[in-house]
Amino acid sequence: MPEKINTKGLTVKKDEDMPEWYTQVILKSELADYSAVKGCAVIRPLGYDLWQSIMDYFNIRLKALGVRNAYFPLFIPESFFAKEADHVEGFAPEVAWVEQKSKDEERLALRPTSETVMYDSYAKWIRSHRDLPLLINQWCNIVRWEVKDVKLFLRSREFLWQEGHCVFETEHETDEHVLTIIKEYQKLSEELLAVPATIGLKSEKETFAGAKRTYTIEQFMPDGKALQAGTSHNLGQGFAKAFNITYKGKDEQEHEPWQASWGFSTRLLGAIIMTHGDDKGLVLPPRIAPIKAVIIPITKASDKSSTEKVLAAAKKIHDELGKAGIAAHLDDRDEHSPGFKYNEWELKGVPIRIEVGPKDVAQDACVLVKRNDGKKQSVKITEAKKVIPLLLDAMQQELLAAARKRAQAMMVLANDYESLRRLLKEKKFVLVHHCGGEECEDDIKADTEGATTRCRPLGEDEPDPGAICVRCGKPAKYKIIFGRNY
Amino acid sequence: MPEKINTKGLTVKKDEDMPEWYTQVILKSELADYSAVKGCAVIRPLGYDLWQSIMDYFNIRLKALGVRNAYFPLFIPESFFAKEADHVEGFAPEVAWVEQKSKDEERLALRPTSETVMYDSYAKWIRSHRDLPLLINQWCNIVRWEVKDVKLFLRSREFLWQEGHCVFETEHETDEHVLTIIKEYQKLSEELLAVPATIGLKSEKETFAGAKRTYTIEQFMPDGKALQAGTSHNLGQGFAKAFNITYKGKDEQEHEPWQASWGFSTRLLGAIIMTHGDDKGLVLPPRIAPIKAVIIPITKASDKSSTEKVLAAAKKIHDELGKAGIAAHLDDRDEHSPGFKYNEWELKGVPIRIEVGPKDVAQDACVLVKRNDGKKQSVKITEAKKVIPLLLDAMQQELLAAARKRAQAMMVLANDYESLRRLLKEKKFVLVHHCGGEECEDDIKADTEGATTRCRPLGEDEPDPGAICVRCGKPAKYKIIFGRNY
Repeated sequence: MPEKINTKGLTVKKDEDMPEWYTQVILKSELADYSAVKGCAVIRPLGYDLWQSIMDYFNIRLKALGVRNAYFPLFIPESFFAKEADHVEGFAPEVAWVEQKSKDEERLALRPTSETVMYDSYAKWIRSHRDLPLLINQWCNIVRWEVKDVKLFLRSREFLWQEGHCVFETEHETDEHVLTIIKEYQKLSEELLAVPATIGLKSEKETFAGAKRTYTIEQFMPDGKALQAGTSHNLGQGFAKAFNITYKGKDEQEHEPWQASWGFSTRLLGAIIMTHGDDKGLVLPPRIAPIKAVIIPITKASDKSSTEKVLAAAKKIHDELGKAGIAAHLDDRDEHSPGFKYNEWELKGVPIRIEVGPKDVAQDACVLVKRNDGKKQSVKITEAKKVIPLLLDAMQQELLAAARKRAQAMMVLANDYESLRRLLKEKKFVLVHHCGGEECEDDIKADTEGATTRCRPLGEDEPDPGAICVRCGKPAKYKIIFGRNY
Repeated sequence: MPEKINTKGLTVKKDEDMPEWYTQVILKSELADYSAVKGCAVIRPLGYDLWQSIMDYFNIRLKALGVRNAYFPLFIPESFFAKEADHVEGFAPEVAWVEQKSKDEERLALRPTSETVMYDSYAKWIRSHRDLPLLINQWCNIVRWEVKDVKLFLRSREFLWQEGHCVFETEHETDEHVLTIIKEYQKLSEELLAVPATIGLKSEKETFAGAKRTYTIEQFMPDGKALQAGTSHNLGQGFAKAFNITYKGKDEQEHEPWQASWGFSTRLLGAIIMTHGDDKGLVLPPRIAPIKAVIIPITKASDKSSTEKVLAAAKKIHDELGKAGIAAHLDDRDEHSPGFKYNEWELKGVPIRIEVGPKDVAQDACVLVKRNDGKKQSVKITEAKKVIPLLLDAMQQELLAAARKRAQAMMVLANDYESLRRLLKEKKFVLVHHCGGEECEDDIKADTEGATTRCRPLGEDEPDPGAICVRCGKPAKYKIIFGRNY
């Protein structure tokens, strides 16, 4: 018999043991679960609801940008990878392959990313400058085999993501597009998830396999690790050359176009959990919460007439919120006490709890409790539908503001190597001058228990005049953030 | 260099060569494309828009039914299949496997369906009758390797689908649920896609591997082949036993629950194309069409002032429809003639064409043209936003009515074997009395170029008193439809 988890509450505090807290929150709130399939996880309905909210939000943005969704094969022929040298080298270690049933058929990989299979089709579709820009995205599953130990939402052999693959006439257009997208990612992170995100360029070492330039959004988690939450790559013309993509320009000549690719994944759910969760469990930003408010009737089995009144009031609130378009859930299970239900819905992160007891009903009122700070207020039942949207908005802003404050406090400057080492030990993210050399990055990583360059913060990476690399003393090429990461 | 298709128009008529017509419509309207990946296809943006409409429609229905979306691993351990004997036997030939990187790790299949991997998790989650019914669905990709030659949307090694996997306390609840779902499928087919669908039970031979009972919706295509468009299975308790799923009932005893699974796939897009398309191309039912109306300005390059007026009027229409929530597209490309544009948008199946020329503008009017019957009417520009929804509704109804009439004319009764054979040759779907024997079904298949049992039409499968099997003469068990199929 498989093990069945009995205890609902968290047994560890967030600031005592964040990895254990993180796993418990996910399992006990039923966001996700481990699977018997090695390296894989199950996204449970609450987790999938969050992903659906992200998809819905981003599909509207994609439409506004003229990007259309499509679907390409899961299987990538071995010969496709081989066409772009840097790309194949970057992905080779993590690719899973399909067992060949016949030696006549080419060996097929499970997509670790879809540049190659998409560009093979693009080569057929693109003929003229009138076919450009070609702006396509897909929502799909991705397989990267190197993972052995699952970290729910953060690391698994299979995960869900979106990948945009776009083609342009010029480098300039491509650069603009790549920046537009990374700003969209930042907006999604901050507006929808209430998770502050820093935009920046990756160092050459951390640039995507086959790309010319990689922009990232980095989210700084409370435990001092950064989450690379989305990337947007200017791929240059390398893939166009490799896949023979050309278009006839306005000048009637054949040209090689420029390409961009960009993606974010179910990792974003990890950022929500780590950023907002507390010792009671998940705290969902109102905009992404599938249930905005849960109604808990406070009844006594011994008092039938009072119970009926309370339940009637609870139903009335539920109906009125429904009509007002506020997703509410009435928890009228009779096998659990109100206290049990409070704990359960706090664990699941529902933004507002609505308590309705006999005293409230006597005054045609109910009590609204905010999940992020526990603040209570009594309102007339008829007013609930007006007050709740205001509370939800306030909570959304409060979560972002609190997260921003925390992240900003973790971001520091260092002018010398010893300070960099010390601050990394203190779990800070450290902005330093750097020479841009890969070896110099490797040295720092080896010397600091794994700190890597996160990004050159956009608009703030210009080196001071005459500044030198914090590590090697050569002239600094830029300012860049070092930090540990997921 | 890959081949680039130049000709936009169809070179074959639907009733002359439907398979070739079907492929041309899909390729030229840019619904989908072949891929260099053997056995696989690409769903292009227009095709994916249709699938998205289906997902959006069905997600609302799922919510109303209390079914929640989740996501389970793509990989299924070999040992999972082995647990349910009929299931493993049914799927063995079509399963693709991942190359093992280490002999210590179990061999993994790519999901041909997810009963086993989901039930393995359910066994952990289900403890009490309070956890039931457990109602979960997932939208995902599916791999079935037996396919070699792709038939776009109808047959490929990988396709997209939804699969619901639900658990109940009793057989009765399971039966009711399975029927509820197949009726939802019928409703989706008829209301959204305007494709009539017949509900029925599958014969024992055609029942899903591991199931007790399989309901199907069958759609009868104009070429005399049926499309099995969705199935809903009562799986009995076999998987519960195999995966050790038990729950504590109200009686405090452990019980084995009942299971149901159900799914439809991107095949549905094939049904839309075949049912409604004509010699000009695709005809999209308005409810599923991503663009409801296309606005074509009729301009002359030689007359600048008239051109400006026409373009201004076209933009005004576009704005007004946008404000009224009608998805319209303004085709103001100047490199193509209006006639070229008419053909292109007819090929792509847009329900309404709006023509705006100098004469129309002089009268503040435009011409509305319906895609299904070419009927034109001139309306004042200010009236367009009121008239178009009425035309869209009318067209939706007309498409369903026409399809229903065609399908009904193809459905006939046969009382003897010679009539059955003759009618199958005439590409009819034939309702006959049958003994229910598998061998007898095989005999008919061998003797009729592949006709199989489609379904026992719901509520109409009761055998006449004393009726005998059309083939073997044994007592009839039921009435069932024979026909060829995709």
